[in-house]
Amino acid sequence: MASKIIKNGTIVTADLTYKADVKIEGGKIVEIGPNLSGTETLDATGCYVMPGGIDPHVHLEMPFMGTYSTDDFESGTRAGLAGGTTMVVDFCLPGPEQSLLEALQMWDNKTSRANADYSFHMAITGWNERVFNEMETVVKDKGINTFKHFMAYKGALMVNDDEMFASFQRCAELGALPLVHAENGDVVASMTAKLLAEGNNGPEAHAYSRPPEVEGEATNRAIMLADMAGVPLYVVHTSCEQAHEAIRRARQKGMRVYGEPLIQHLTLDESEYFDKDWDHAARRVMSPPFRSKQHQDSLWAGLQSGSLSVVATDHCAFTTEQKRFGVGNFAKIPNGTGGLEDRLPMLWTHGVNTGRLTMNEFVAVTSTNIAKILNVYPKKGAILVGADADIVVWDPKRSKTISAKTQQSSIDYNVFEGKQVTGLPRYTLTRGEVAIEESTVKTKEGHGQFVKREPFQAVSKALSTWKELVAPRKVERSGIPATGV
Amino acid sequence: MASKIIKNGTIVTADLTYKADVKIEGGKIVEIGPNLSGTETLDATGCYVMPGGIDPHVHLEMPFMGTYSTDDFESGTRAGLAGGTTMVVDFCLPGPEQSLLEALQMWDNKTSRANADYSFHMAITGWNERVFNEMETVVKDKGINTFKHFMAYKGALMVNDDEMFASFQRCAELGALPLVHAENGDVVASMTAKLLAEGNNGPEAHAYSRPPEVEGEATNRAIMLADMAGVPLYVVHTSCEQAHEAIRRARQKGMRVYGEPLIQHLTLDESEYFDKDWDHAARRVMSPPFRSKQHQDSLWAGLQSGSLSVVATDHCAFTTEQKRFGVGNFAKIPNGTGGLEDRLPMLWTHGVNTGRLTMNEFVAVTSTNIAKILNVYPKKGAILVGADADIVVWDPKRSKTISAKTQQSSIDYNVFEGKQVTGLPRYTLTRGEVAIEESTVKTKEGHGQFVKREPFQAVSKALSTWKELVAPRKVERSGIPATGV
Amino acid sequence: MASKIIKNGTIVTADLTYKADVKIEGGKIVEIGPNLSGTETLDATGCYVMPGGIDPHVHLEMPFMGTYSTDDFESGTRAGLAGGTTMVVDFCLPGPEQSLLEALQMWDNKTSRANADYSFHMAITGWNERVFNEMETVVKDKGINTFKHFMAYKGALMVNDDEMFASFQRCAELGALPLVHAENGDVVASMTAKLLAEGNNGPEAHAYSRPPEVEGEATNRAIMLADMAGVPLYVVHTSCEQAHEAIRRARQKGMRVYGEPLIQHLTLDESEYFDKDWDHAARRVMSPPFRSKQHQDSLWAGLQSGSLSVVATDHCAFTTEQKRFGVGNFAKIPNGTGGLEDRLPMLWTHGVNTGRLTMNEFVAVTSTNIAKILNVYPKKGAILVGADADIVVWDPKRSKTISAKTQQSSIDYNVFEGKQVTGLPRYTLTRGEVAIEESTVKTKEGHGQFVKREPFQAVSKALSTWKELVAPRKVERSGIPATGV
Amino acid sequence: MASKIIKNGTIVTADLTYKADVKIEGGKIVEIGPNLSGTETLDATGCYVMPGGIDPHVHLEMPFMGTYSTDDFESGTRAGLAGGTTMVVDFCLPGPEQSLLEALQMWDNKTSRANADYSFHMAITGWNERVFNEMETVVKDKGINTFKHFMAYKGALMVNDDEMFASFQRCAELGALPLVHAENGDVVASMTAKLLAEGNNGPEAHAYSRPPEVEGEATNRAIMLADMAGVPLYVVHTSCEQAHEAIRRARQKGMRVYGEPLIQHLTLDESEYFDKDWDHAARRVMSPPFRSKQHQDSLWAGLQSGSLSVVATDHCAFTTEQKRFGVGNFAKIPNGTGGLEDRLPMLWTHGVNTGRLTMNEFVAVTSTNIAKILNVYPKKGAILVGADADIVVWDPKRSKTISAKTQQSSIDYNVFEGKQVTGLPRYTLTRGEVAIEESTVKTKEGHGQFVKREPFQAVSKALSTWKELVAPRKVERSGIPATGV
Repeated sequence: MASKIIKNGTIVTADLTYKADVKIEGGKIVEIGPNLSGTETLDATGCYVMPGGIDPHVHLEMPFMGTYSTDDFESGTRAGLAGGTTMVVDFCLPGPEQSLLEALQMWDNKTSRANADYSFHMAITGWNERVFNEMETVVKDKGINTFKHFMAYKGALMVNDDEMFASFQRCAELGALPLVHAENGDVVASMTAKLLAEGNNGPEAHAYSRPPEVEGEATNRAIMLADMAGVPLYVVHTSCEQAHEAIRRARQKGMRVYGEPLIQHLTLDESEYFDKDWDHAARRVMSPPFRSKQHQDSLWAGLQSGSLSVVATDHCAFTTEQKRFGVGNFAKIPNGTGGLEDRLPMLWTHGVNTGRLTMNEFVAVTSTNIAKILNVYPKKGAILVGADADIVVWDPKRSKTISAKTQQSSIDYNVFEGKQVTGLPRYTLTRGEVAIEESTVKTKEGHGQFVKREPFQAVSKALSTWKELVAPRKVERSGIPATGV
Repeated sequence: MASKIIKNGTIVTADLTYKADVKIEGGKIVEIGPNLSGTETLDATGCYVMPGGIDPHVHLEMPFMGTYSTDDFESGTRAGLAGGTTMVVDFCLPGPEQSLLEALQMWDNKTSRANADYSFHMAITGWNERVFNEMETVVKDKGINTFKHFMAYKGALMVNDDEMFASFQRCAELGALPLVHAENGDVVASMTAKLLAEGNNGPEAHAYSRPPEVEGEATNRAIMLADMAGVPLYVVHTSCEQAHEAIRRARQKGMRVYGEPLIQHLTLDESEYFDKDWDHAARRVMSPPFRSKQHQDSLWAGLQSGSLSVVATDHCAFTTEQKRFGVGNFAKIPNGTGGLEDRLPMLWTHGVNTGRLTMNEFVAVTSTNIAKILNVYPKKGAILVGADADIVVWDPKRSKTISAKTQQSSIDYNVFEGKQVTGLPRYTLTRGEVAIEESTVKTKEGHGQFVKREPFQAVSKALSTWKELVAPRKVERSGIPATGV
Repeated sequence: MASKIIKNGTIVTADLTYKADVKIEGGKIVEIGPNLSGTETLDATGCYVMPGGIDPHVHLEMPFMGTYSTDDFESGTRAGLAGGTTMVVDFCLPGPEQSLLEALQMWDNKTSRANADYSFHMAITGWNERVFNEMETVVKDKGINTFKHFMAYKGALMVNDDEMFASFQRCAELGALPLVHAENGDVVASMTAKLLAEGNNGPEAHAYSRPPEVEGEATNRAIMLADMAGVPLYVVHTSCEQAHEAIRRARQKGMRVYGEPLIQHLTLDESEYFDKDWDHAARRVMSPPFRSKQHQDSLWAGLQSGSLSVVATDHCAFTTEQKRFGVGNFAKIPNGTGGLEDRLPMLWTHGVNTGRLTMNEFVAVTSTNIAKILNVYPKKGAILVGADADIVVWDPKRSKTISAKTQQSSIDYNVFEGKQVTGLPRYTLTRGEVAIEESTVKTKEGHGQFVKREPFQAVSKALSTWKELVAPRKVERSGIPATGV
Repeated sequence: MASKIIKNGTIVTADLTYKADVKIEGGKIVEIGPNLSGTETLDATGCYVMPGGIDPHVHLEMPFMGTYSTDDFESGTRAGLAGGTTMVVDFCLPGPEQSLLEALQMWDNKTSRANADYSFHMAITGWNERVFNEMETVVKDKGINTFKHFMAYKGALMVNDDEMFASFQRCAELGALPLVHAENGDVVASMTAKLLAEGNNGPEAHAYSRPPEVEGEATNRAIMLADMAGVPLYVVHTSCEQAHEAIRRARQKGMRVYGEPLIQHLTLDESEYFDKDWDHAARRVMSPPFRSKQHQDSLWAGLQSGSLSVVATDHCAFTTEQKRFGVGNFAKIPNGTGGLEDRLPMLWTHGVNTGRLTMNEFVAVTSTNIAKILNVYPKKGAILVGADADIVVWDPKRSKTISAKTQQSSIDYNVFEGKQVTGLPRYTLTRGEVAIEESTVKTKEGHGQFVKREPFQAVSKALSTWKELVAPRKVERSGIPATGV
């Protein structure tokens, strides 16, 4: 059998740093140790051999106003691999009244050209008995253990507290993990209308329409709902101190809540929206919007202390042409930015090179933590015998200036344009196949596979035990009076 | 003209303690100073002469399931006066689709036998253009500057975020103050159904159905809505650390938020619901429910530090007979307890006598603070020349054991039954009339008058100035591209 | 008897805003009401009639390295009056081993030319039996109820935890209030030495030597010591979020702690120290140093919410010539800036005009709160019959640009140079005498008198009661074994 | 070569749970996988195969008032092994003016009969040039990378801020980690004297003498010192919310601070000190003392959220006879309790069985986290090929009632007496040797070896990089004036 050896590197995982070679056969790691040999050798001298990045938050070929986000599973996973990311998780978004299973089929259809492995979160965009029933099928048969809830996008994806609480309770029963996009959709809608009515229609008004307090409130609310439902919670794209504070406060009480900052929010700030160039500002429109430096400091500290768990991208790439749909009305600017290719280099440059994060913490927040949370560890997120050979050989000396001209993504700009990064993949391997070799792209369309994920992750189980222990107990009484009035 | 002199007492206000006599004519304080004389003298030797208590949170003769809460404006204000409270604020609760003005007329009709002055908060229980318009009339013509919003009681009084946000914005325009009953009604309803389905139907399940986290969440949400609307906020019956924390966190950012603990929550705890006697437990059913000692400590500290502003009662008295309507189904137990007569003696005993509060702080939280918040200071809440002679002459040595047998309230029990208090009125005066002289009740039916309150309290005005200063500003751009797609 | 009438103004106090005239006789307010008349009239049309400012934190003619801070009791009180401040509290600083009483005599000698009333805090700069005994005399005979403790200035004024704890316990017995300058002096000294050793000798290194964490730590420590001693605490010149957080956290537990931000820290920031002009930077050197905008936001919010109580100046004015003593060694730059004349106009401009504070809150934080804390209310800090006629007639339309050229202070610069302020005194009266009439200075040297202050302020007494209630209780045991080993 | 196979178990590590056999040769794990065979088989059917516990906080044969704590390295490590703990870290405590190296020699002499591996923390109990120099030798030659600082025990082990700050800076240079016992020694000493003077001499007064605020203050202070020194910090025996809050607040800012609750503080409370039996109370005397339930909740939540990192024991066992030395004077009761044998079973019972912790978290807080912090991972704290075979085969069904009668510890009582635990070792292996087989003790005296630990753990390095990046920068100025005065 053909084998590959990653030679002379230093293995860096979420908890170990050591010199060893890695042997790969059949897409899996089969041996780790000194002096290994095989049919092919990849030189990792001077490099770190790390689990490939997992981006748990992407939207590829996402339907939008009759068109689609421009990066699809092909270009999206290619961009990811170019930046060291070997797995993505997309969101299946059922339409109004649509069957979850039918939607899942539609989403699955988009993935045939994926270059790397992928999985899905299922969105709950409404509530009825069919949804209740289909959730079980989604978990048990479809290998999906996460359900996304939008607290914003009123009139579209948004669910109300009742629906969300019902779904969270269902998640608890099924051993699944609820995710939330936490912004108060009612307030955003109302403030958007007010801003537009006042003539505040530029991209900066997008930021005005959803300040940090609005995100903090929704985060706090989702946490309470999860606590009452007895289920852990994962908060996507935590962008600000207010949301982070709600997460910290919950964790401080022992609640099981995870926060996911995006690389964009960690490194870019709200001044982008005040750029005099409409296109520049509009290209940065996403929800939540970029925040001030103060919020960035909060997010970095969260990664350092563990109150935030995962760095993602919310990669949802629209072209300038698509962005211009919102000229004259910021509310019509398609929400989303790229990031898949830049997440790891940007985080390494601003996190590891500055001393904010150790290399092990870098691996944890880009790969291992989310693998555990999604219950695919150690198949993914690990350099262990038996794990998938989703590996990035990281050259800490390689440097480049980020530019749309040289990127893999299909769009015509890059929100990190001009940023210098130091620390880039020498090789990226997806299940043992070299997809990237420095600047050379060797991805294979259709190589990517769906990754099934089991429910009842350890934390879910523990929380259920605890909630049972502290459940309401009836007071036994004799002599209860007859009913009154 | 006939005059009364309160002689030889020590005047205690929110910020002063000094010896002086008080002269009263025509229902008002006309002179304060040494050696005053008049046609009648009330001996205050050994006593403190304080502004009469103001209870901003009562429900007298409140409609409920075809009957009414048992204390009406007559017995309610009589109970208040007996305990040193000289003014109450009730809640006008419009029915579904009812005109605010029509409801106000109905409420006004109940007050003809009031023994002490009163005012109203107007509840916003739905939202439409008529409500929007009538709010202006309520403020400008009816002398009401406060609007109450129920975040709980789903299917009845509850409003959703959209409605509440619209109303808060309207309050900002009118210079009015929004009030909230902060509990997440969706969650309470869902958990109530679940508890009942599981056979958990006793009074203790009432507490299970609305834990502190549920109150904390709603408080936090209301604060965000008020902040976005640019209006101060008053949170009624803050019962727990979670809600108090949300208030503190808001204030810490400079937000203008007031919290109102009840004397019940300060001195009684959740163990009451676990009493083996169904009646005992049911009589204590109110929302929010009593909490643990730890929450009590939080509330006391809030009064000490100023993060909580006012002690009220939410007096809403139902007889045991009425309470028994909920036998077999806790959700049908009418919510409410008494307290009007006991608020001041209980707070003095557990607050001033223990050293938790100074006498001045006692006056502040029972009278002066709410007078300022409601913008009726110094007509009410003050011992100043020109102020209404709503005065309690407080004997710090008088002692009694609280008992339903000796109370003024019409109901057949008292949640403070058996508590020993030290510190009681020697005299209570309402606009100069002696209503209480030690144990002798001299109240006059119909003496009480409606107290008008002007909008645009100083804090409201300041906040509007600030919000205007930091309002969104449009970025001026040239060369905006043509719209895309 | 000659009388003055302040006519046609609007009285603004910490809790009232109303139209009335004020009549003054013998240095005191004798009547407040409409249409008063007297021998002299001061026109207050369009103005607010407020209690004169009290600056509880000044150092006039303070000894320093063989010289003295340049503003003495004459120029200092003149500057204060020009800005609406009618009383100052200075610090008596006994030398090593010096008798408190002897030091007090020395300080008293400086005051003969004071233009306005003054009082003293006594500093505890060491600990021995004489200090213990003299504290009683200071409180009972000398009318001083506050003791200052320096946690910084190692080798000079600094006391250690043991000394401070002993003094705090003594304060508790005497009903006195301890004050602290809260910075960790050991760390400051060590970091100063390190910075100098590294060649970091410019004024900016002063800021590096005492970061916010160092102040926060000391504040937290002083709070614990006060809590254990059972005494309230007043923290001077709270400059940063860290210290404010410690104060908030204490208050949140019901502890009686007051914080005092300076007008400088509210309106100036650390960028001043990075000015390329050495003199500019050195003139701003004070301890604690100016902080970032984020800390300013925290301080303003503290004034809004009541977690901070008083705005002061720490006025301690050194000339440029004196500042240059520290050329080549920042540790030798005399610490201190001016501010007495500018405190009220700057706070009005940045506080009231922006809507951050109401006018009543302005009065509270510049005058009334500290009068209460120092137990001289309502003699000072009030517009009440019987109060000293220390009054500022405030013209909210008057405007000027702050400049050293036009200031009363003796020094040759002003840290607020070039700031535009709107809101200035039309008249300032000190015990009924007009000291300032718009730009005309009419102060009288020697008019100022010492203000005695009684111990056992209400909060002190309440706290003692509480601490007695929760004091350790011995467990009574029978059958205690014989001692072992 | 002889080999052992742990057969049919489920391996549980800090991040994995999977079925596999473990093969051991030469004291190390040499293979992990299915169907392994060797010369000897240990049946792990139904069991979890976990890294042996590491107790980083023990005092064996600790000198005290002319005698020694009763458990020595023999009985102490035996007790540890009986409870699944395979490594302990003791504290070398140099006397006043004693050489660190000389003290280390004395400590090393005690270890000859150790049954399991051990290491040392070096205490810094004073400061001078020799200490400064010897710290380098201790780190580079002696394999010790941790230095302990006592902020309490005034007059004995206590160091002041100056000394501690100097030592912390030295730790930063050497890549070592400072540890602190955080209680304000000045305050404890003063309050102890006061209590005794008041006749409060029983064991309960020990708790009175060091309330939570006193621990919180010191924790906060140590954190600031570490932050200024640019070094991570490890806080031993974090017993209360106040200390935990300080740690959380630091972590929230990205500071690298670790907290270590003890199993005693997690499961026992202060009511023990109020026991009528003097011996019962005195046996529980340790510093910090047991706290209330509320503090316990805080500690558990810290383990859940990661704000606390390690569960230890501070095992320091004195007999009843020794405890009685403090009859009549609580300050003479030797401080310390046992726990080595009970830590894992108690934590499993109250943590894992209740659902508060997952099994993986259990391993993390009892073994893996501290192995990483001490930089001995993965030699210790791991089930990995190459790791030492320090393994506990954990039977989750085994149950017992804790009793002094059946314990390994030499003392005559057990603070957990009567507690029922479920979850106990079936086997404990120390470097491949079976030391415990259910109730059978097979320990070998002298088997234990010293474990060397390298400095510059990854977090230390990262923090140094960051601190360099944000270090003070001098402002370059031209035209600096001549020095003044």
